[in-house]
Amino acid sequence: MRFLFLGDVMGRSGRDAINERLPGIIERYKFDFVVVNGENASHGKGLTEAHFNAIRNAGADIVTLGDHAFDQREALSYIERETTLIRPINMAPGTPGRGAMFVEGRNGHRVLVINAQGRVFMPPIDDPFRAVEAAVAACPLGEQADAIIVDFHTEATSEIQAMGVFLDGKVSLVVGTHTHIPTADHRVLRGGTALMADAGMCGDFESIIGTESDEPLNRFLTGIPIGRFTPAEGEATLCGVAVETDPRTGLAVRVLPLRIGGSLAQAEPIFD
Amino acid sequence: MRFLFLGDVMGRSGRDAINERLPGIIERYKFDFVVVNGENASHGKGLTEAHFNAIRNAGADIVTLGDHAFDQREALSYIERETTLIRPINMAPGTPGRGAMFVEGRNGHRVLVINAQGRVFMPPIDDPFRAVEAAVAACPLGEQADAIIVDFHTEATSEIQAMGVFLDGKVSLVVGTHTHIPTADHRVLRGGTALMADAGMCGDFESIIGTESDEPLNRFLTGIPIGRFTPAEGEATLCGVAVETDPRTGLAVRVLPLRIGGSLAQAEPIFD
Amino acid sequence: MRFLFLGDVMGRSGRDAINERLPGIIERYKFDFVVVNGENASHGKGLTEAHFNAIRNAGADIVTLGDHAFDQREALSYIERETTLIRPINMAPGTPGRGAMFVEGRNGHRVLVINAQGRVFMPPIDDPFRAVEAAVAACPLGEQADAIIVDFHTEATSEIQAMGVFLDGKVSLVVGTHTHIPTADHRVLRGGTALMADAGMCGDFESIIGTESDEPLNRFLTGIPIGRFTPAEGEATLCGVAVETDPRTGLAVRVLPLRIGGSLAQAEPIFD
Amino acid sequence: MRFLFLGDVMGRSGRDAINERLPGIIERYKFDFVVVNGENASHGKGLTEAHFNAIRNAGADIVTLGDHAFDQREALSYIERETTLIRPINMAPGTPGRGAMFVEGRNGHRVLVINAQGRVFMPPIDDPFRAVEAAVAACPLGEQADAIIVDFHTEATSEIQAMGVFLDGKVSLVVGTHTHIPTADHRVLRGGTALMADAGMCGDFESIIGTESDEPLNRFLTGIPIGRFTPAEGEATLCGVAVETDPRTGLAVRVLPLRIGGSLAQAEPIFD
Ligand SMILES: [Fe+2]
Ligand SMILES: [Fe+2]
Ligand SMILES: [Fe+2]
Ligand SMILES: [Fe+2]
Ligand SMILES: [Fe+2]
Ligand SMILES: [Fe+2]
Ligand SMILES: [Fe+2]
Ligand SMILES: [Fe+2]
Repeated sequence: MRFLFLGDVMGRSGRDAINERLPGIIERYKFDFVVVNGENASHGKGLTEAHFNAIRNAGADIVTLGDHAFDQREALSYIERETTLIRPINMAPGTPGRGAMFVEGRNGHRVLVINAQGRVFMPPIDDPFRAVEAAVAACPLGEQADAIIVDFHTEATSEIQAMGVFLDGKVSLVVGTHTHIPTADHRVLRGGTALMADAGMCGDFESIIGTESDEPLNRFLTGIPIGRFTPAEGEATLCGVAVETDPRTGLAVRVLPLRIGGSLAQAEPIFD
Repeated sequence: MRFLFLGDVMGRSGRDAINERLPGIIERYKFDFVVVNGENASHGKGLTEAHFNAIRNAGADIVTLGDHAFDQREALSYIERETTLIRPINMAPGTPGRGAMFVEGRNGHRVLVINAQGRVFMPPIDDPFRAVEAAVAACPLGEQADAIIVDFHTEATSEIQAMGVFLDGKVSLVVGTHTHIPTADHRVLRGGTALMADAGMCGDFESIIGTESDEPLNRFLTGIPIGRFTPAEGEATLCGVAVETDPRTGLAVRVLPLRIGGSLAQAEPIFD
Repeated sequence: MRFLFLGDVMGRSGRDAINERLPGIIERYKFDFVVVNGENASHGKGLTEAHFNAIRNAGADIVTLGDHAFDQREALSYIERETTLIRPINMAPGTPGRGAMFVEGRNGHRVLVINAQGRVFMPPIDDPFRAVEAAVAACPLGEQADAIIVDFHTEATSEIQAMGVFLDGKVSLVVGTHTHIPTADHRVLRGGTALMADAGMCGDFESIIGTESDEPLNRFLTGIPIGRFTPAEGEATLCGVAVETDPRTGLAVRVLPLRIGGSLAQAEPIFD
Repeated sequence: MRFLFLGDVMGRSGRDAINERLPGIIERYKFDFVVVNGENASHGKGLTEAHFNAIRNAGADIVTLGDHAFDQREALSYIERETTLIRPINMAPGTPGRGAMFVEGRNGHRVLVINAQGRVFMPPIDDPFRAVEAAVAACPLGEQADAIIVDFHTEATSEIQAMGVFLDGKVSLVVGTHTHIPTADHRVLRGGTALMADAGMCGDFESIIGTESDEPLNRFLTGIPIGRFTPAEGEATLCGVAVETDPRTGLAVRVLPLRIGGSLAQAEPIFD
């Protein structure tokens, strides 16, 4: 099977690009399954139910979140009703919502998607490694699951690489989100797991990681807030990673970056 | 002119790749100038004089450093004698060595290279923005300098993007180092400055950012050291970024990634 | 001479205690000079001009600030007019206001007060050690200055102790602020400088460092904001430190804690 | 009953003070139970078995640890045999040793001691609040336990205060360790739990939090290591906190600081 993961959708710019381009992308590159990280879709801060529905309607099978999961307070309630929206699995016990979902894609593939949050340079949270390990063990790749996709939302490159090594051979893809900058280290590890340190955002790169440059730059220079952070509104680059799996094992056969639109160098996931 | 920047050389694996491949790369792609970050060249920690000389002999015009600059104590003395080795410019006043060098390349181009260190998720250090601004002002692009290359050694993607916006139109390239993972966001900003959030390391990617995986993974899982960090010794990927400048202005016309050897997807900087 | 330093005034509770008790304290214990840290006086966030004036009217000769200096935006302008309000000296060049003031107290003593901000577990800022050293050198103790008081606003106990050692023999008092909890390590160092790691806040201790407990506790337990931080409104303990100096040298002869009112164990600075 | 808690024993200076003074202190102030934090007893780094035994022989009923628990590797094995040595309860599952012990004191009191580690400005670790809550629930105060003592090893004053509020009414004492500086905020909270943000170290205060000043000061000034950290060897101040409980409830009736020897202002825990 072939699946696509798209990184943090950033504000209106990112949402518009998802709405306009994702359906065509799914068709053109023949994706069987799509995961989109939506933690910044609503004004850069969290995800309203309306924006969640829009991302789903554009073709996402599962939407993941991150440290901004509940910036929009309504997410604390509607996440309980939704079976296609997940937040980091290692959030505190009792947190609304779930951290993993096992669903069937448009072509009948059964896919486990796990969202976890890192701890290096991130707010305190419980161990993501053990939490992900348990979720994978409950639904092993090549047995129950045709593919397992892990969105590891974290800052440090060491931590995402460690998660890749930790899960190598047990999941189809470990992909980082949160830094908003796509990395060029996509590869299939020795055990057959695809890894990419960060998918990059779906947002306007003429910015500081998706935010209009003025205020972030002011803060770096003076340390004193004078305005608010607002998402940049130019054309987004959709950033993500595409994986083709071995139907027998669910492991990755190939991994290719996707970067379409906006100001970044373009990359099309052409598998053949 | 056309120049190349290569990211953090990591241990023997990185040094060997530099020695074996850099001369051929310079010749094949016709680079007029080469900068290499050497902060991890000696066993992952700092840079001995012998390893510095080896990197220079392989074709580096300038070698830059980072937070590991003085892990090899001998660097505190030999850096004072060297005119082609720089450490972050915003280190404390009185730190041995210099943070910027203005030198002439093999084909007569006069190039200013600046090394600076970030502050987000990094050890405390003085303001890199003002320090770099002053160095650039003392030797403006298109006047004294044919090219200005800024190695901004930092962790956070927001800080490197901010430095790019800050210097846009005043330098040829702002490139990040330190995370050891190459990014795919290379582009020319509106004002003509090329930007890439991280050059990536020159090291073995079958590892956790260049270090043998066992001990870093152990620490993520248990929090308790049981061994030492040692550089991985498989074949390195040389990671970096190549820039072609407008001879009149010194600004970037094109920017292309370079990734040669080892386990990452290959990228050749073919400008035409 | 004899002077008093009071730590971070926290919200209405702290302001009320200052207004009601400080005049009597000054009289009873015969203080020649008073410094008050006001960074949290206005609803826990910064210092309005009205609240600054109230603290001054209650008897403060100099008011100091910290990382919250400009949370109340009006401080960016009125600080420029005030000669008795200072913010951390190591803020970025161009920051409104000054970081040190040399003033004359009610009984004719000439006092230099310096405010600086630490870097460990704090937002990035330039080197406080060199900035304070330069301010002290410009107005030496026992020559121009009858007393020098350093409010070092920082989190880590190691950093405040280091500042004490660094300045020992050159200033009358190094006192920490920012953690809001008074320490019991007040002492005169070998060189004659009094040191106390944190003065403690002037606020209601039936709280979490001055804030109503519910929301901070919620965040520790869930990681998810559900309300705002508001200052606790019970009776404040005024927390600070009193120093008696040798009139010839300006160095400390004795140092005593002050804790009056509220729920902490009381401590009166009775020098004889 | 009456119990004593002593903070981080720092190197030989701290060990000597424990050996020489603790037996007399127990006798003079009639302590029924003694807990000592030993995480820095062996050269500032961890706790050898010999040093653990020495602290026990001097009168400690239970020895606690912290982030330095396993700096001396032998602790990974001997902790498994010891029933009076605990490490933070929220360390990763599978970590050698236990995080809570329920033991009987010299006069027949049954005491539960819990060690936990904070997360703010500390290495990543699982939630200490839920871990402590579960340990308390398994052995409630006033039922199984005559006293419950919680050593919360953490940096941030907000986190230790939050733990106090969280456990108020359920334990006898919440005391912080790790900053090495005693605080002056000891008090009985409304629900009957005694709280003190940091017990302070048992070490030589003519130092930077127990370490010879030269190297820490050098690092603050230059950022570049030139030597090692070694414990200061002058006379230690024993720092801690004493609590008297209500025999019916196990809650605190009074709480008093103890500071004996060395260079800090002395405080004797005289309850009547
Ligand atoms: Fe995020
Ligand atoms: Fe994000
Ligand atoms: Fe590096
Ligand atoms: Fe580095
Ligand atoms: Fe404060
Ligand atoms: Fe503060
Ligand atoms: Fe300690
Ligand atoms: Fe500690």
